[in-house]
Amino acid sequence: MWGMITARAEIRVRYAETDAMGVAYHANYLAWFEVARTVMLEQIGVPYKQLDTEGFLLPVLEMGARYLEPARYDDLLLITACLEEIPKVRIRLGYTVHNQGRLITTGHTLHAFMSRAGLAIKPPLHVQQAFARAFACHGTAGADALR
Amino acid sequence: MWGMITARAEIRVRYAETDAMGVAYHANYLAWFEVARTVMLEQIGVPYKQLDTEGFLLPVLEMGARYLEPARYDDLLLITACLEEIPKVRIRLGYTVHNQGRLITTGHTLHAFMSRAGLAIKPPLHVQQAFARAFACHGTAGADALR
Amino acid sequence: MWGMITARAEIRVRYAETDAMGVAYHANYLAWFEVARTVMLEQIGVPYKQLDTEGFLLPVLEMGARYLEPARYDDLLLITACLEEIPKVRIRLGYTVHNQGRLITTGHTLHAFMSRAGLAIKPPLHVQQAFARAFACHGTAGADALR
Amino acid sequence: MWGMITARAEIRVRYAETDAMGVAYHANYLAWFEVARTVMLEQIGVPYKQLDTEGFLLPVLEMGARYLEPARYDDLLLITACLEEIPKVRIRLGYTVHNQGRLITTGHTLHAFMSRAGLAIKPPLHVQQAFARAFACHGTAGADALR
Repeated sequence: MWGMITARAEIRVRYAETDAMGVAYHANYLAWFEVARTVMLEQIGVPYKQLDTEGFLLPVLEMGARYLEPARYDDLLLITACLEEIPKVRIRLGYTVHNQGRLITTGHTLHAFMSRAGLAIKPPLHVQQAFARAFACHGTAGADALR
Repeated sequence: MWGMITARAEIRVRYAETDAMGVAYHANYLAWFEVARTVMLEQIGVPYKQLDTEGFLLPVLEMGARYLEPARYDDLLLITACLEEIPKVRIRLGYTVHNQGRLITTGHTLHAFMSRAGLAIKPPLHVQQAFARAFACHGTAGADALR
Repeated sequence: MWGMITARAEIRVRYAETDAMGVAYHANYLAWFEVARTVMLEQIGVPYKQLDTEGFLLPVLEMGARYLEPARYDDLLLITACLEEIPKVRIRLGYTVHNQGRLITTGHTLHAFMSRAGLAIKPPLHVQQAFARAFACHGTAGADALR
Repeated sequence: MWGMITARAEIRVRYAETDAMGVAYHANYLAWFEVARTVMLEQIGVPYKQLDTEGFLLPVLEMGARYLEPARYDDLLLITACLEEIPKVRIRLGYTVHNQGRLITTGHTLHAFMSRAGLAIKPPLHVQQAFARAFACHGTAGADALR
């Protein structure tokens, strides 16, 4: 777990997110991953809202998930996002979803930094520094994440 | 039905749109209304995509719906959008949803023309003219709509 | 405000809930109303999850909303659900959405109690009693709601 | 392409499916994959609606996608689902999304046959036969798919 940044979010499954099988529809997990991603970026000091205002987008290039158990209406889920290395041009995040302590889903997303014009760009300097700082003090972050 | 413009769209209920009751979740009807609205604007010659490119938005100010019967996965629904008068500053549309010939839902939306800066504006001249033209030849449009 | 039961929920606007206008898509407010509705039912002692298990559904018969101002990604919204009278066969709820103290949306939903077989039924006795109890101690509930 | 069954569906990107980046939100592709999957099952003679009625579910165990280019509001997309071998216990499907002839997304889903009680089961005999028949006449199916 050395040098890993993690962030957590709690999600309560909405009725709107269920399907006729009586479980949470698989596509909704992507929105939940994003909630944890939002928390992570805020946590390291570069809220996505601010990046967006500055003209930096983080589109999803690739994603995937494995569903071990279903989630149901009103279940309280713990979503964890995890960043294993300082992102350069691309950011790869891993995710886990726990329901009452049981791991029910894992997933990942891969993102690129992009300008509003749609060009792939390097992350702005202050973002690179924020990531570096977050990794430098991963001790604390990691400890917090493992509490 | 004098002077009314109508547009139609067919929708097949997606599994993603169902909920744990086994029926289409009520919020999804708003997206279906929008599909019929898109068809109407295209039909009268001012596709929303073009309006959007020109900087004119049509945010929803108000909406409502009554659900008479549920819709289920894979049902083929007919969505009808209906404009009763030439829009001035605001556009009010009515909607019906039919399933196998049975009316299952009615609804309405009220929109304003807005600039990208968020200011209420008059619809651009070419849009006003398109609506006027559409109403002038409502005979054909109406006939088609009632087929 | 005499005899009114209210419940509150906080919602952070997800990127998934925004649209190309850069604001929260209007249909998503219905899912947020539902989150506050879930809180209310839990608060009065008849969690919807339990009703569902017992075979009682609460389908939406009617709904509506007025949008005064848009909400944007990452905005923290306060959703309030409000029940003005003890429900008999139908339940009518009012909703407000506040963003940083400003009222941005109002809405309502009307529900019927329904069996899994799709028949309109009276709410089960323990549900009627729970509503009655909640209204009887509305003093506290109301005070809490107005804090 | 030997022995491959394919099915196609056309999707027009809804405004509801866009996000604040101005493009289709990545989770929506999963619902589109599902539309093509529905077409495939119907095409080989075992509509999912019927499977569902018979008590057979096809939950998603795993999924993934790569996004090569974004899609925008009102774009007309061609979704292709592709089955490479006769499914035994699990079904693995591949997907492509084309926009005006350009490949913009690829993906896959892996499903299990499951009973309503949540147990993994073999597909019912008539479903096994339908898949076998579909592969036997893949010549036609393939030709059609490549038109």
